[in-house]
Amino acid sequence: MYVGIDLGGTNIAVGAVSDEGKLLKKASLPTLAGRSYKEIAADMADLCRQVTDGIGGIEAVKAIGIGSPGAVDSENGVVVFAGNLSLNNAPLADEVKKYFNIPVHMENDANAAAYGEYIACNVDADSFVFVTLGTGVGGGIIINKKIYSGFNGIGAEIGHMTLEMNGKECNCGNRGCYEKYASVTALIEQTKQAIEKNPASVMSDWVQENGHVSGRTAFECALNGDSAAVEVRDTYIRYVAEGIVSVVNIFQPELVVIGGGISKEGDILLNPIKEFVAKREFNKHMKKTDIQIARLFNDAGIIGAAMAAKANLE
Amino acid sequence: MYVGIDLGGTNIAVGAVSDEGKLLKKASLPTLAGRSYKEIAADMADLCRQVTDGIGGIEAVKAIGIGSPGAVDSENGVVVFAGNLSLNNAPLADEVKKYFNIPVHMENDANAAAYGEYIACNVDADSFVFVTLGTGVGGGIIINKKIYSGFNGIGAEIGHMTLEMNGKECNCGNRGCYEKYASVTALIEQTKQAIEKNPASVMSDWVQENGHVSGRTAFECALNGDSAAVEVRDTYIRYVAEGIVSVVNIFQPELVVIGGGISKEGDILLNPIKEFVAKREFNKHMKKTDIQIARLFNDAGIIGAAMAAKANLE
Repeated sequence: MYVGIDLGGTNIAVGAVSDEGKLLKKASLPTLAGRSYKEIAADMADLCRQVTDGIGGIEAVKAIGIGSPGAVDSENGVVVFAGNLSLNNAPLADEVKKYFNIPVHMENDANAAAYGEYIACNVDADSFVFVTLGTGVGGGIIINKKIYSGFNGIGAEIGHMTLEMNGKECNCGNRGCYEKYASVTALIEQTKQAIEKNPASVMSDWVQENGHVSGRTAFECALNGDSAAVEVRDTYIRYVAEGIVSVVNIFQPELVVIGGGISKEGDILLNPIKEFVAKREFNKHMKKTDIQIARLFNDAGIIGAAMAAKANLE
Repeated sequence: MYVGIDLGGTNIAVGAVSDEGKLLKKASLPTLAGRSYKEIAADMADLCRQVTDGIGGIEAVKAIGIGSPGAVDSENGVVVFAGNLSLNNAPLADEVKKYFNIPVHMENDANAAAYGEYIACNVDADSFVFVTLGTGVGGGIIINKKIYSGFNGIGAEIGHMTLEMNGKECNCGNRGCYEKYASVTALIEQTKQAIEKNPASVMSDWVQENGHVSGRTAFECALNGDSAAVEVRDTYIRYVAEGIVSVVNIFQPELVVIGGGISKEGDILLNPIKEFVAKREFNKHMKKTDIQIARLFNDAGIIGAAMAAKANLE
């Protein structure tokens, strides 16, 4: 048994995970961002005990994995910088290790989630890319069955490859980043603009009913045939697909998996992406990259962190 | 000693290479594209004998490496598809092996060149990306000290990542590919357009003197302060830099090396790229990717193929 910890801006989610990557028991506490890493580690330790209680206890755990936002030094188990948690050079792995005498491994949270989805796909792929559509666009790269994160631990920033030179300004300092077009934040912006231009759209009523614009607004209203909603949805899907073409041409991975809440739209999202990529990808003569929707969603981070800790033992 | 073979559209270039990656002796024959792979292999065998003659002979060669254009199946030593050579499923490695009883390893030519530059850099980097600015924009990726080329052998097509959605049409089927802006072909096109718009530019005289527009036209005339030439040069460099930002954000490699004939411009090309990338890259808190100019140029393919054959023995 392993334990996976998904350290988020809002919650610390912890799960006991079987050797095969099955989530056995889960619990969480609020992160209360701004606290010291020692306080956070204390809560993590409590949660570790809680999720293993009754299923063998902490003694049955071979290793603990932590997925943390921000820049992570996996080798030394340190959160180098995580702005939204106000953590700076926090030796979190060592701090958790103080509670239990077992190995603690740390990864960036997006990489941990990618690894979780990779394990869940149960393919023997050497190469795999995970693209999460959320507040931003996250990425995770598996090469030779291992998490690849560059020489400094912060690689795989798929969301910050340029999709449009001189395009929209991004917080990162670049312009035209993929996530400025393909994140759910971008979709919400695109939806708002369309509603403003088309006040008679069904989307206006949807917003009134639901209180606010969300990533689902255009997708749901498009099902009713609302033409403005259809246009928002299809344009957004096209943006997502444009980035996938680059990912495929650069990596030719065996599998690309698309995650994040919006990926629950399933085939409505997936099929036009596949169609667009098939037309645009460089590869005309060899085996082609498969594209799928994520399987684990919210649990990917926990399972991935646990499985990365397992892989690190081997 | 190893032998490296760089199979090009025009020439078959073969070199004897020391265990440390030093080119000892070189010879070439015209490819005469369109011939069968058996005829090409026969010339390769002749050249192998020629370059090893007097320095130990073929008996002193531990392995032969071939870099071939197109889609290459490294595992089986087959050129799956190389349009410019009219080769289809050609078992070139086995054919060369018939002449000498030593291992023959095959790679895509861009990957071989990347590996050559990687070895020449003499860094102990786990991650390295090579970007060649030529007729197109080629790429080569080294991860965990090994050539990475995707699950189907044709990855690392950096030139076919999208830099501009709905941008210029590319032969590959995509639009706005990096190479439509940053290849020397693109630079020549950009130079021609500028000359047309600015007939009084020094570039017009340059073309008269030299007979045709080349990748050097704008760079040389810019040195004389010609404003149209400066604009062409600086815009082109900016295009190159835009793509490097994406490469850095995706891979966070220890080192990016820029090759191709135009890279001989040295610091005039390199310094503004470095400046632009420093401003635009995602990484604000960790060690940063170094960017350098290639060392080997035309010999990279030979040396890289030889050294890849060596690595494949290990």
